[in-house]
Amino acid sequence: MNTKKRIAVVLSGCGVKDGSEIHEAVLTLLAIDRHGAAAHCFAPSILQRDVVDHAAGKATGETRNVLVESARIARGHIRDLATFEAGNFDALVFPGGFGAAKNLCSFAVDGPDCNVEPSVVAAIKTMHQAGKPIGALCIAPVILAKVLGKIEVTIGNDPGTAAAIESMGARHQQKGHGEVAIDRVNKVVTTPCYMLDASISQIAEGADNLVAALLELAKVPATAG
Amino acid sequence: MNTKKRIAVVLSGCGVKDGSEIHEAVLTLLAIDRHGAAAHCFAPSILQRDVVDHAAGKATGETRNVLVESARIARGHIRDLATFEAGNFDALVFPGGFGAAKNLCSFAVDGPDCNVEPSVVAAIKTMHQAGKPIGALCIAPVILAKVLGKIEVTIGNDPGTAAAIESMGARHQQKGHGEVAIDRVNKVVTTPCYMLDASISQIAEGADNLVAALLELAKVPATAG
Repeated sequence: MNTKKRIAVVLSGCGVKDGSEIHEAVLTLLAIDRHGAAAHCFAPSILQRDVVDHAAGKATGETRNVLVESARIARGHIRDLATFEAGNFDALVFPGGFGAAKNLCSFAVDGPDCNVEPSVVAAIKTMHQAGKPIGALCIAPVILAKVLGKIEVTIGNDPGTAAAIESMGARHQQKGHGEVAIDRVNKVVTTPCYMLDASISQIAEGADNLVAALLELAKVPATAG
Repeated sequence: MNTKKRIAVVLSGCGVKDGSEIHEAVLTLLAIDRHGAAAHCFAPSILQRDVVDHAAGKATGETRNVLVESARIARGHIRDLATFEAGNFDALVFPGGFGAAKNLCSFAVDGPDCNVEPSVVAAIKTMHQAGKPIGALCIAPVILAKVLGKIEVTIGNDPGTAAAIESMGARHQQKGHGEVAIDRVNKVVTTPCYMLDASISQIAEGADNLVAALLELAKVPATAG
């Protein structure tokens, strides 16, 4: 019997400016493998909000699909988030990048009044109701704050984003490089990553600490909701 | 004075099927940072040979630029390989992915008779002539074999690719997960990565061993060519 813990990783495209932050996504996959768990990638099959030329820093007017671009990070091994079932997984994690705030929800444009993609709402709510841990890196904690409300998260130390998180009913904890905020009651783990001016080694450290905390929380039996 | 060693990383797009293998590229950048060196990303500003839908595994007919897509991995910090000057760097490294064999050279289509993108040829030749180390992961060693000829490299254990390498005048060494082939005379370091059926942790190990070997070779004074 395969006793590896199964962690679902929700991607939002491929590139920090319009999709998943690639270092955060890859280093989350690395941390999952190093901790002896198995990563399973998902993404919603929807159009990206925009496509940004990452060399010039300008929108190009192209259209790209979030699932198709996310498949680049997943080496083709990826499923539509609409097919996600909480019963099949031990934890759920959202790497950061603007895709989390542009494609998985509309926080980058609408702030605290943002909408969240329905398949993302369903994945978060069903995992939370099942008492299973959820992680988020960088800007992605705003999605958890919007969907779950009264949780404790970190996005590092940006006052504007922290205030937006509080206005959605969540509490913000200030955290530094590689550190994680752990809300044990709600089984939510978050880490700032590139919300701070970080090195890639600090991203690896944050992703590793986050995955370790998720796996620790996954051992705690779920209580009735 | 900043005494950090400077390593140029040549990307070939963003995604294993038509560009740089993303895990190999990111884990090379991580290894460079962890070993206390500084990574500087480059890519040629040319059109990709093709664009592949990584979810469906099929060419899409789109056109994308190698430099622009590579900028996704580099978070925007990237320069045109045509501006590369060997005098500014201590080592040069090529992550793998089909981009190395489709965009940086035409090996994926033409085999040993492949052409190599002129800015890639210039970067390899000027570094080699300066007695500086060059690394390549996965399929990228075929580029070094084509440009430098009599060197020793590994692409893992694939007989067809090994035979192609030998027919370009190089020698092939069989290597396993995480292992590196080190040609001390020519200061060339190579590692198989996803040319083998590897885990992401094994890619990290291979990239780390490769960067360590490059930095070790960078300490050896260059001899007159």
